[in-house]
Amino acid sequence: MLVRLLYASRAAGALTAVEAMPAILRQAKANNPEHGITGVLCCSDDMYLLVLEGGRPAVNRMYNRIVADPRHRDVELLGYEPICERRFAGWAMGQVNLTRLNPGVLLKYSPSATLDPFAVSGAASMALLDELVATASVGCQG
Amino acid sequence: MLVRLLYASRAAGALTAVEAMPAILRQAKANNPEHGITGVLCCSDDMYLLVLEGGRPAVNRMYNRIVADPRHRDVELLGYEPICERRFAGWAMGQVNLTRLNPGVLLKYSPSATLDPFAVSGAASMALLDELVATASVGCQG
Amino acid sequence: MLVRLLYASRAAGALTAVEAMPAILRQAKANNPEHGITGVLCCSDDMYLLVLEGGRPAVNRMYNRIVADPRHRDVELLGYEPICERRFAGWAMGQVNLTRLNPGVLLKYSPSATLDPFAVSGAASMALLDELVATASVGCQG
Amino acid sequence: MLVRLLYASRAAGALTAVEAMPAILRQAKANNPEHGITGVLCCSDDMYLLVLEGGRPAVNRMYNRIVADPRHRDVELLGYEPICERRFAGWAMGQVNLTRLNPGVLLKYSPSATLDPFAVSGAASMALLDELVATASVGCQG
Amino acid sequence: MLVRLLYASRAAGALTAVEAMPAILRQAKANNPEHGITGVLCCSDDMYLLVLEGGRPAVNRMYNRIVADPRHRDVELLGYEPICERRFAGWAMGQVNLTRLNPGVLLKYSPSATLDPFAVSGAASMALLDELVATASVGCQG
Amino acid sequence: MLVRLLYASRAAGALTAVEAMPAILRQAKANNPEHGITGVLCCSDDMYLLVLEGGRPAVNRMYNRIVADPRHRDVELLGYEPICERRFAGWAMGQVNLTRLNPGVLLKYSPSATLDPFAVSGAASMALLDELVATASVGCQG
Amino acid sequence: MLVRLLYASRAAGALTAVEAMPAILRQAKANNPEHGITGVLCCSDDMYLLVLEGGRPAVNRMYNRIVADPRHRDVELLGYEPICERRFAGWAMGQVNLTRLNPGVLLKYSPSATLDPFAVSGAASMALLDELVATASVGCQG
Amino acid sequence: MLVRLLYASRAAGALTAVEAMPAILRQAKANNPEHGITGVLCCSDDMYLLVLEGGRPAVNRMYNRIVADPRHRDVELLGYEPICERRFAGWAMGQVNLTRLNPGVLLKYSPSATLDPFAVSGAASMALLDELVATASVGCQG
Amino acid sequence: MLVRLLYASRAAGALTAVEAMPAILRQAKANNPEHGITGVLCCSDDMYLLVLEGGRPAVNRMYNRIVADPRHRDVELLGYEPICERRFAGWAMGQVNLTRLNPGVLLKYSPSATLDPFAVSGAASMALLDELVATASVGCQG
Amino acid sequence: MLVRLLYASRAAGALTAVEAMPAILRQAKANNPEHGITGVLCCSDDMYLLVLEGGRPAVNRMYNRIVADPRHRDVELLGYEPICERRFAGWAMGQVNLTRLNPGVLLKYSPSATLDPFAVSGAASMALLDELVATASVGCQG
Repeated sequence: MLVRLLYASRAAGALTAVEAMPAILRQAKANNPEHGITGVLCCSDDMYLLVLEGGRPAVNRMYNRIVADPRHRDVELLGYEPICERRFAGWAMGQVNLTRLNPGVLLKYSPSATLDPFAVSGAASMALLDELVATASVGCQG
Repeated sequence: MLVRLLYASRAAGALTAVEAMPAILRQAKANNPEHGITGVLCCSDDMYLLVLEGGRPAVNRMYNRIVADPRHRDVELLGYEPICERRFAGWAMGQVNLTRLNPGVLLKYSPSATLDPFAVSGAASMALLDELVATASVGCQG
Repeated sequence: MLVRLLYASRAAGALTAVEAMPAILRQAKANNPEHGITGVLCCSDDMYLLVLEGGRPAVNRMYNRIVADPRHRDVELLGYEPICERRFAGWAMGQVNLTRLNPGVLLKYSPSATLDPFAVSGAASMALLDELVATASVGCQG
Repeated sequence: MLVRLLYASRAAGALTAVEAMPAILRQAKANNPEHGITGVLCCSDDMYLLVLEGGRPAVNRMYNRIVADPRHRDVELLGYEPICERRFAGWAMGQVNLTRLNPGVLLKYSPSATLDPFAVSGAASMALLDELVATASVGCQG
Repeated sequence: MLVRLLYASRAAGALTAVEAMPAILRQAKANNPEHGITGVLCCSDDMYLLVLEGGRPAVNRMYNRIVADPRHRDVELLGYEPICERRFAGWAMGQVNLTRLNPGVLLKYSPSATLDPFAVSGAASMALLDELVATASVGCQG
Repeated sequence: MLVRLLYASRAAGALTAVEAMPAILRQAKANNPEHGITGVLCCSDDMYLLVLEGGRPAVNRMYNRIVADPRHRDVELLGYEPICERRFAGWAMGQVNLTRLNPGVLLKYSPSATLDPFAVSGAASMALLDELVATASVGCQG
Repeated sequence: MLVRLLYASRAAGALTAVEAMPAILRQAKANNPEHGITGVLCCSDDMYLLVLEGGRPAVNRMYNRIVADPRHRDVELLGYEPICERRFAGWAMGQVNLTRLNPGVLLKYSPSATLDPFAVSGAASMALLDELVATASVGCQG
Repeated sequence: MLVRLLYASRAAGALTAVEAMPAILRQAKANNPEHGITGVLCCSDDMYLLVLEGGRPAVNRMYNRIVADPRHRDVELLGYEPICERRFAGWAMGQVNLTRLNPGVLLKYSPSATLDPFAVSGAASMALLDELVATASVGCQG
Repeated sequence: MLVRLLYASRAAGALTAVEAMPAILRQAKANNPEHGITGVLCCSDDMYLLVLEGGRPAVNRMYNRIVADPRHRDVELLGYEPICERRFAGWAMGQVNLTRLNPGVLLKYSPSATLDPFAVSGAASMALLDELVATASVGCQG
Repeated sequence: MLVRLLYASRAAGALTAVEAMPAILRQAKANNPEHGITGVLCCSDDMYLLVLEGGRPAVNRMYNRIVADPRHRDVELLGYEPICERRFAGWAMGQVNLTRLNPGVLLKYSPSATLDPFAVSGAASMALLDELVATASVGCQG
């Protein structure tokens, strides 16, 4: 049973989301392959938007760790669905720094040119992620 | 919650719609970005046809100002719908002077070659706007 | 061209929405028939939720008057669509005092048992209105 | 934004799920109404199956508390979706003791007559819950 | 090839539509059966709304006679479609005097409680006719 | 309200359809633009097949004139439908002399390689017209 | 492979269809069961309308015999389709004498109140047969 | 993962299918519950038609035993599909002796009134089984 | 009314299907155009597979002649349907000698690499014919 | 009746699946053509995944032999369906050694980068096979 899980969270602690991102990515790249988890992590100044794909138990174990992780607060599920095929199979953990994006991309799916996944539907955040992949805005360097 | 709102109005006051357009566009371009509003304004001699996209409260605040604006009379909603994705994301306020268009474009969606959004369905006016975008008839200069 | 328009607003001025309702209904019942407008007005302590059905120009003239009416503020469109058939044809202006409803009815369509059409989709507010009609919760006495 | 969340977990600590159920229900009934959360809790000897409905942030805050609650282990999301209308609006927290059910009901949706939501799709667990509601097998007494 | 044809016209000449109706019905009842034509004729003070069903050539011959008939002016097609099965098979020529109807029936499908098929879509006029049949408002007496 | 009307007729009077065509086209090109009517006229030796698009009243006025025109007999509606968009917007009155066509084109939509719109469904005649447009068989010279 | 075959034919030879019917039915009832063929035979003065259901080879052998039978001329297929389930399983060979039917039943599906399956689509003839079955107009006596 | 498997086989060995049925049912009723398998067994003189529902591995283990069982030859799969819900949950092993059925039931789904699942599609055999259940023709006594 | 008819038959008499084909094609090419019939004839050693398109009466007259033709036996309808547009309009009578085809083409639609339309569904035979047309395997030389 | 059958099994006996594959393929290529069977065989270290297409009796005879073959254990059906057209018509028996594949291909359809058809749905295994064909990863050399 493969699932796709999308959530948002706010950065907690001393570091902003952008500052904390390299460490989070390093960790993800080290651990995800052995659990068969793939995905993409976006961050803006103080928020994360993350999509995870993998086996249902593995994705849940990782999500439960994130809920308990002191670097995240306001962890909020945006979408969760059984899938037949991964959409983000190419990344152990892809990454997007949304603060460097063309603001127009964000505007297309949200009321303002700022990432606020807490204010929009999960479908809108997922559509933004799909557009980032389609326009090759996802990188794989930590 | 993103919405798209389409309305028509007639020019009120001393100026025709074509004459009043530059001032309206200047104002729109100055104010829309901070409210996350995008759209396209068409005018013929004495009428406006306008589509607005943005967050639901912002679009409504702007529409309520237009209803109260003495430069517009017979303000009439033609369409309003929740959207997942903007169609006119590229324009803080695009513009079309319909008096300069090939009359055949107007004819395709209405009984005569003159803009009369009050006489046709909102869907027909929206189809006209989509065709104007698709045929690169929308400009962005005030 | 028949249309259905759904909006919410907050009571402005000295009276709460519940207190202002009788006068609003009297006025609606006096004026709507000659303009072919039918609908239902809901109020809670400080909010209105109103659906109007009728010819497109008549519904727009009435909506524009509401936007300009000092008894309403934060007037916000929730839905607007061309219709083939009225759903609320039976009421020159039906009425529902939501403060007297079983709270469970509100809960079914919204995050809490309080009317807040500003926080939910237009479809959710419309579904609430449909349920009120289906369960005979709409009255016609001012 | 209303959501429905379905998860399974195993009882952790000294009490079985059936033994721990009364305390969990008491707590739920005390806290859920103020957060606008409704749902149904099923338990078998050592497992819980729970569906929550409510506003997206409220449901997430509750789910995050469950993930961190030492009475639950192996907390696993089975389903999560935006909804227009609650299906379990009638229960602050309904309850089903699956050990007292006709085994045939469990058999209809799973390979054996024992509850094992970890081994079946979320859709199967949801179908079981719907059948329990349809056959009036849900109680509201703690 | 069976077809259904719906048209509206205004009464021309000295008689109102209501006054001219008995003669028109007598004629229809005398001639329609031999041509296999069935239908329903509605009239208000100065307008007719008529639906004809039958073989394509027969329905066209009758429509062409109506276009040339001095008792009708502004003859306007509202709908025309191939059909597999007649909907008004029971009437050589059914009849409805719309001036005696509950005004609410007209209001359901049009902007005002007056018959004006020239101002609404053919689908709306057809829906009105269907409702008249469903509510047994069609008579067969001339 | 835009509509599309398709009819067939036989040439009446001294001239064959092919001979009468130039005069009919000249008239159409002179009058149609001011009424916002566009269309295509096909003729074979003794038959016409014509599609008209435009506002509902204008198309009906023209059709009623054709019904009364002594150059046409057996005028028979083949199709009539509300449209959102014209399909033949490019021609004040396009023309096709079917006697010069590859017979295979006629064969594709009818039992024999001769135009006989009276014997086939309106959909078949419309499909033939669409193919003529798609294969650039429509001319605009009178 | 079960199939359903519908055809029409005209009576040939000295007897009318109604006169020849008893002998045809006797034969059918004697032979059909062993070939697993079921169906319904309708006749009017000079025409037959017959539906056969059964295995593909058996139905074809019977149809080929009918084509060669001197009591039938103008044998014309109206419909033929693979089926999963018989619709006329109850009759070794049901029968309807259409000359005794309410003419309104025939009128519902054809341009005149006379059976003429050669002039209408196979779907219309099949719809007539279905209505005859639904209204218990099919008998089983030879 | 629940699956439904439908197969046919011919009786091998000294006993006919009808004679061997009691022993097969006794065995099935003894073993199926512990493997969570439910189903229905039909037999005619020399054939079996059996539907099994249960977890994928359990259903396969049973099917593989049947393939190897000397009482069956010509074992042939007719259908196999993942299911969300059992259709035959009520029978550890229901039974139908097709030799005692009204022959019309068999005729409805097959070319002759004899069971021959080898000659028809799996869908036809499944439809027969569904009809047997719907008409209460399934027993549970060995 | 255009129809498409597909049938199979076996060669009867002294000649194999391949040997008889030239004469059959000559005859078809001589007669079909005047009756508006088009189609494709396939043959293997001892079988024909033929699709005919044209007016309903013409196609039936030809089919009835084939049923009576001593060069054919086991004539079996495989498909028959009303069509809006011919698919084989290009051939008075196209031809395919299946014994010269890549056996893989036959295998794609049937259990073995030999043409046996009697053993497969009409849809499979039609799919084979469509593939032959799409891959330009149809010739027009007798 | 064509069917497609997909199953998985584990290698039994002294040889791993990869070691046993050449002999299995040689046998398949020798026997499949005469039975009209085509397909693709995948193996990883200790598992087989095989899709077979062909006539229903032939595919079943082969499957029954595999169930009884001592080189296979845990033979488990993953999918079985009637088909109109083969998807793997090009291979008497294609082959894929999954141990040499890019692990990403396996990951796309399963929780980990290892073939485990026993743990995923038949649809997921079939999707993997389709991708292998689409990306030309299937060979035909034994």
